[in-house]
Amino acid sequence: MRLSELSERSGIATATIKYYLREGLLPPGERVSATQAEYGESHLRRLRLVRALLQVGRLPVATAREVLGHVDDESLGLTIRLGAALWELPHGPEPDEEAPETAAARAEVDALLDRLGWTHAREIGELSPVHRSLVAGLATLARLGYPYESAYLEEHARLMYQVAVQDLDLMETHPTTSQQMEMAVASAVLYEPLLMSLHRLAQAEESARRYGY
Amino acid sequence: MRLSELSERSGIATATIKYYLREGLLPPGERVSATQAEYGESHLRRLRLVRALLQVGRLPVATAREVLGHVDDESLGLTIRLGAALWELPHGPEPDEEAPETAAARAEVDALLDRLGWTHAREIGELSPVHRSLVAGLATLARLGYPYESAYLEEHARLMYQVAVQDLDLMETHPTTSQQMEMAVASAVLYEPLLMSLHRLAQAEESARRYGY
Repeated sequence: MRLSELSERSGIATATIKYYLREGLLPPGERVSATQAEYGESHLRRLRLVRALLQVGRLPVATAREVLGHVDDESLGLTIRLGAALWELPHGPEPDEEAPETAAARAEVDALLDRLGWTHAREIGELSPVHRSLVAGLATLARLGYPYESAYLEEHARLMYQVAVQDLDLMETHPTTSQQMEMAVASAVLYEPLLMSLHRLAQAEESARRYGY
Repeated sequence: MRLSELSERSGIATATIKYYLREGLLPPGERVSATQAEYGESHLRRLRLVRALLQVGRLPVATAREVLGHVDDESLGLTIRLGAALWELPHGPEPDEEAPETAAARAEVDALLDRLGWTHAREIGELSPVHRSLVAGLATLARLGYPYESAYLEEHARLMYQVAVQDLDLMETHPTTSQQMEMAVASAVLYEPLLMSLHRLAQAEESARRYGY
């Protein structure tokens, strides 16, 4: 399809699409003449993802470009490719190495991953910003005097694992690896806030059941 | 204890504590002379929560005051009191009534709550900002062309319900209603980011198990 049709079908103004092309967020179309290029379904899908990252995820253009670069990097294995894309997304604070609680939090995370048998997460360790923000979060809890119960943390992790299994099942309903990668990134940006809304609604529901109004 | 001891035990400078007192974030101590007041364990706990809300939750002082006002409002039933406090916390976007997807998203949320049997959530409906942000989130997914599967949404909601049951079990380990309220608010601010970190770590783990590295 031509640029005008891509604009019509995506609902995104041609000027905006041209901006995405210039910024490297959208791969160029196939050139069919000196002034015209042809775009395909993959461009439509990519536009959708770009909009999700910029408008909903509020990512800076440079960050979105990094994310998409990893999504497209076929030289990487699927797990590393997905991890690299997700690692570019905003995440929690870094561990404070000056804080005395950090070492204990780090040991707690390692012990948790061992109990869970999450060998991949244990191996990647603090290369992952997600792992680091878990350490930082636990250290903050300890510093503020809110102890965390290892047993609850482990149970929460197991429930989150069930959510992750469903996420990947859903991802696999998409036919190609590229589409699966796009779906995984969109889901991190778009579904996580929904998951948190469901969590808070569930808390209110359980509270009403236990204590009345 | 005197202000100096409260400062020492909490690790918060006396000037900061005086600021919290002026701003109504910390209830006044019991006056023992014209210039001195006596503080108790409840002040220590409250300081801990104030610090969590301001430093970790990054709430504006006025918002923190609203949250704490609901935490302390013993005229309310427990569920309403907890709800009111949590509703003051930052949450997702509001539904866009101009968007054609909003009505369908609203119907989807109602149908979901009916299937789940979450009668309290269904009754409170969009009085709850959490409910509204769920509607807004689903409408955004539809607008961006990422369909959501009702079955997955329901399964995610059921898992989040299990998390909520654990949250309230943990809350109930605290002896008084005031402490339970404080714990619930702290947990919304401090634990939710941990839950999301666990979710992303679990995704990476499951990805490694399915696809290798």
